[in-house]
Amino acid sequence: MEFSSKLLERAVNEMSQLPGIGKRTALRLVLHMLKQPKEQITMLAEALQSMRNDIKFCKSCNNISDEELCEICSNPNRDESVVCVVEDIRDVMAIENTSSFKGLYHVLGGKISPMDGIGPHDLNIQPLVKKVEEGKIKELIFALSSTMEGDTTNFYIYKQIQEYNIYTSTIARGISVGDELEYADEITLGRSIVNRVPFESSLKS
Amino acid sequence: MEFSSKLLERAVNEMSQLPGIGKRTALRLVLHMLKQPKEQITMLAEALQSMRNDIKFCKSCNNISDEELCEICSNPNRDESVVCVVEDIRDVMAIENTSSFKGLYHVLGGKISPMDGIGPHDLNIQPLVKKVEEGKIKELIFALSSTMEGDTTNFYIYKQIQEYNIYTSTIARGISVGDELEYADEITLGRSIVNRVPFESSLKS
Ligand SMILES: [Zn+2]
Ligand SMILES: [Zn+2]
Repeated sequence: MEFSSKLLERAVNEMSQLPGIGKRTALRLVLHMLKQPKEQITMLAEALQSMRNDIKFCKSCNNISDEELCEICSNPNRDESVVCVVEDIRDVMAIENTSSFKGLYHVLGGKISPMDGIGPHDLNIQPLVKKVEEGKIKELIFALSSTMEGDTTNFYIYKQIQEYNIYTSTIARGISVGDELEYADEITLGRSIVNRVPFESSLKS
Repeated sequence: MEFSSKLLERAVNEMSQLPGIGKRTALRLVLHMLKQPKEQITMLAEALQSMRNDIKFCKSCNNISDEELCEICSNPNRDESVVCVVEDIRDVMAIENTSSFKGLYHVLGGKISPMDGIGPHDLNIQPLVKKVEEGKIKELIFALSSTMEGDTTNFYIYKQIQEYNIYTSTIARGISVGDELEYADEITLGRSIVNRVPFESSLKS
């Protein structure tokens, strides 16, 4: 792609670094921006920068937060003895949206994926094991997507905490195997939390 | 969509202003940015802002340019008596890519589209009429996409310049009717420029 302007080329190249945004799409988006008021592009640029620079992750659950402790972890009405293990913040948002879960979350930040070079130590797993060790958790709900990576991650965590004899469950698979949690409809997702099953029983199937 | 962070919410809202980017896609992109080095997001933000604030449009053809006159208009080897009328800069890029055209361009910045509230005066049409009046142009090639809006725009311009008796042509429709120019393959697009036909004959078909 030959550009008549370095400024344009640079903007398109930066935009096309984003996942799923090819050069053509980036060009379309950038040309659209050129027709918007300057203030709006300034607002976009500033929103992205301050988000990247100033955002915090909850000290306890690793959820994105503007405070040290997220709104969920700091809510006294939530049951801290039940912890739902999720891959990322989108899963927290999806489950919260169902209003069917009153425990806390633990956000791993990804799944174990040797193909992508992501091992257990790249994920927020040790703090979870520590919480279990400290005896605060009665039940751990695995809510990772049911892919090979999700299963591997569940099993890795399960092995780490097995000795502490807490109750472990996985969300009921009303959700079709391989589907991403965040695309599940609210009713199915809510029901799969309510109908969660012991983790051991999911290993046998 | 409920967010656990105002910074996150603002970034997602700003991103989802872009055409074709819904809230879910915006969230996915923004979460990806959170995993990138801060410097990269700064570079993206600065590229968008300086593009929007500092980009120039060629004084002569309205192509995007870093100079007053774009590289095409300032190239002495190009034939300034043949002008190809296009909708936007992507069409210039697509035609330049074929290496089959040695004249200049005139970028309208859109098509007449009453449905979208875009009239002739919202487009870069008067400067084109002026160029024709000044007698600099021998041939005008209409290369708008062959949609109703494109045909309307062609015809409007044709009426404005009819009295000056210059030769008008449209690119040969090897390209299927209704297709966007920028998605045409190079060979078809190049051939359709070489095989351009008198504009009047396209009115009869
Ligand atoms: Zn938290
Ligand atoms: Zn120019």
